[in-house]
Amino acid sequence: MANVLIVGAGGVGQVVAHKCAQVEEVFENITLASRTKAKCDKIADMLPRKIDTAEVDADNVSEMVALIEKVKPDMVINVALPYQDLHIMDACLETGVHYLDTANYEPLDEAKFEYSWQWAYQDRFEKAGLMALLGSGFDPGVTSVFTAYAKKHHFDRIKTLDILDCNAGDHGLPFATNFNPEINIREITANGRYWENGQWVTTKPMEEKRVFAFPEGIGEKDLYLLYHEELESLSKHFPEIERARFWMTFGASYLKHLEVLQNVGMTGIEPIEFQGQQIVPIQFLKALLPDPASLGPLTKGKTCIGNIIKGTPQGGGEDKIYYVYNICDHQECYKEVQSQAISYTTGVPAMIGAKMMMEGKWMKPGVWNMEQLDPDPFMADLNKYGLPWQETWLDKPFV
Amino acid sequence: MANVLIVGAGGVGQVVAHKCAQVEEVFENITLASRTKAKCDKIADMLPRKIDTAEVDADNVSEMVALIEKVKPDMVINVALPYQDLHIMDACLETGVHYLDTANYEPLDEAKFEYSWQWAYQDRFEKAGLMALLGSGFDPGVTSVFTAYAKKHHFDRIKTLDILDCNAGDHGLPFATNFNPEINIREITANGRYWENGQWVTTKPMEEKRVFAFPEGIGEKDLYLLYHEELESLSKHFPEIERARFWMTFGASYLKHLEVLQNVGMTGIEPIEFQGQQIVPIQFLKALLPDPASLGPLTKGKTCIGNIIKGTPQGGGEDKIYYVYNICDHQECYKEVQSQAISYTTGVPAMIGAKMMMEGKWMKPGVWNMEQLDPDPFMADLNKYGLPWQETWLDKPFV
Repeated sequence: MANVLIVGAGGVGQVVAHKCAQVEEVFENITLASRTKAKCDKIADMLPRKIDTAEVDADNVSEMVALIEKVKPDMVINVALPYQDLHIMDACLETGVHYLDTANYEPLDEAKFEYSWQWAYQDRFEKAGLMALLGSGFDPGVTSVFTAYAKKHHFDRIKTLDILDCNAGDHGLPFATNFNPEINIREITANGRYWENGQWVTTKPMEEKRVFAFPEGIGEKDLYLLYHEELESLSKHFPEIERARFWMTFGASYLKHLEVLQNVGMTGIEPIEFQGQQIVPIQFLKALLPDPASLGPLTKGKTCIGNIIKGTPQGGGEDKIYYVYNICDHQECYKEVQSQAISYTTGVPAMIGAKMMMEGKWMKPGVWNMEQLDPDPFMADLNKYGLPWQETWLDKPFV
Repeated sequence: MANVLIVGAGGVGQVVAHKCAQVEEVFENITLASRTKAKCDKIADMLPRKIDTAEVDADNVSEMVALIEKVKPDMVINVALPYQDLHIMDACLETGVHYLDTANYEPLDEAKFEYSWQWAYQDRFEKAGLMALLGSGFDPGVTSVFTAYAKKHHFDRIKTLDILDCNAGDHGLPFATNFNPEINIREITANGRYWENGQWVTTKPMEEKRVFAFPEGIGEKDLYLLYHEELESLSKHFPEIERARFWMTFGASYLKHLEVLQNVGMTGIEPIEFQGQQIVPIQFLKALLPDPASLGPLTKGKTCIGNIIKGTPQGGGEDKIYYVYNICDHQECYKEVQSQAISYTTGVPAMIGAKMMMEGKWMKPGVWNMEQLDPDPFMADLNKYGLPWQETWLDKPFV
């Protein structure tokens, strides 16, 4: 039975704490730590059993080391900010504990999503006999496992992969963001990128748009091609893939609001002089918008995230098109863990990834992406712990 | 030859000063006054001949009286704010000079456009042997004269009147307002109102929309029904009118920006606490938006304002549909008076109205709306001083 230290007390940390607390047979002792202990205590008060809480600045390696030495966890579940991944990995190496995160490291000062920094830890983790599991959220994470599962059970050869991330939730407000609007805007205004025939192809922001009819009454939604980090590891670990793309739904109204706010300068990050003060427009905008935390109880509807995979079926024959996906209901998530589906779909796979490691099913020294490990026990736990998946064969490819 | 005092040094005041200066045979002496003398001096420096400038708070009747006694004008041309109309009328009565304005009085604390306050001065002006000419801009003003002209020359009986105000100018910026965005938003979000069968009919904001193909390459534009002040006086002075409506064009992009800014609270007038200061969102928005004065040199395209009138033609017979309009080019206006067409189309009729009074063509004690006076000399001067009009017969009514 395991002792885990969860770092990060945002929406995802809250879900991870809830789900670990539910699985007492694996996670005997839980400590939740963040920069603000009061946030940890607030989450602890919601849980069905007692956990410990602590204050830590995850950017400060020696503070992290001191906390790990005090708590003596078997592993750290890192759901803090992506900027902090390397510092926490350093602390894990120094103290000899395993590591898991849900999003790859990002330097604070540039928008650069890539695994190079973390993959560079491979030798050190391997030599220390420690495991680092990278990207154990939904996308990356479950979408990576979906790909490995498709390869293991259905395909001799995967030819094309399209990951479709649909949030059909509606909070009923004209405009609000689930998280920092600045990050959101950066994502939407950045170039898209996808993998094709052994190289990266760059697209203009929002240049590639598709419509897809999602299952279970969600219906047709607009999807836009974005770059997403699992494309890097999946194209590396499945070199046979001819084309791999990532798509996310954005509603017309959401895009309209972002466009206008950009046009008038409300999303600017340079301060302007106003009433004798320096004011950063996007910070003033944030003050006007609803607090993301207030959206949880308001959000209705579902998310649907999954993979459409085309390839040569096992045993040969005509190419087949496989669709594997999870549907998650915002209100049911909120009922269970007081967070809506965006945090839920990230937090549950983090708990399952940690469970795989602690149960020894995935324990293996080194730095690993999700698709490198046996998908079967993880897929079974998705069904058991709140993210049931479905699979179907499609008549036509996603083009 | 006349001595005039122009009060107000905004965009319209600048045009009036320019146009009066051009007509030296009528306006021998010109004084331009406003709260900020520097603004008057700046305008004076642009003009082809010397005018005087002065500082005055038009809200302060005794200050206005003192200025009038010093300048000794034959009339005051009031192009200050509508809140100041009554104070300036009081000062004119006290000093015995004639009065002209371009927009009806509005109390500071309520959005209430009506002539009642100014019509109540009728007896006082008549007894003093003084004339007050109300609403000598374009709409109201030229649109009122267009109606009187149609009645005098073409119709036995006017049945329906539709005033179409189209600004097809483009400043090339994603979003900017020609004037205070707060006033603009109030106009658009207010209920519409029109005259039908002897009573006012209220419509929801932007409820009534039409498309009209404007002449001279402007093409099809969306028009929305608004209340506009000339409807009050025209329905009174032409009681035969069965229906009178006012329409203004708004582009889809402009409306989209206003909608989003409202949705996120950026148009709010209640202060919010931010960085320890009270900040009014719409004031912060104003600081972000381009200065309206900077739009002048950027604005291209035309305005087209006119009346579509259906009725029984003189001599009887089938109803006919008459369209009389002016086309004004933003860039040509800017070249002539360093203001674009919005200010130009208001300022030129103010000068012509004053000219009609000073030449004795319209001189008549009392308080008058434009349509109560002989349209012919005014119509002739529109052609002469920069706002040429055209008339045509339409095949089908504006429904």
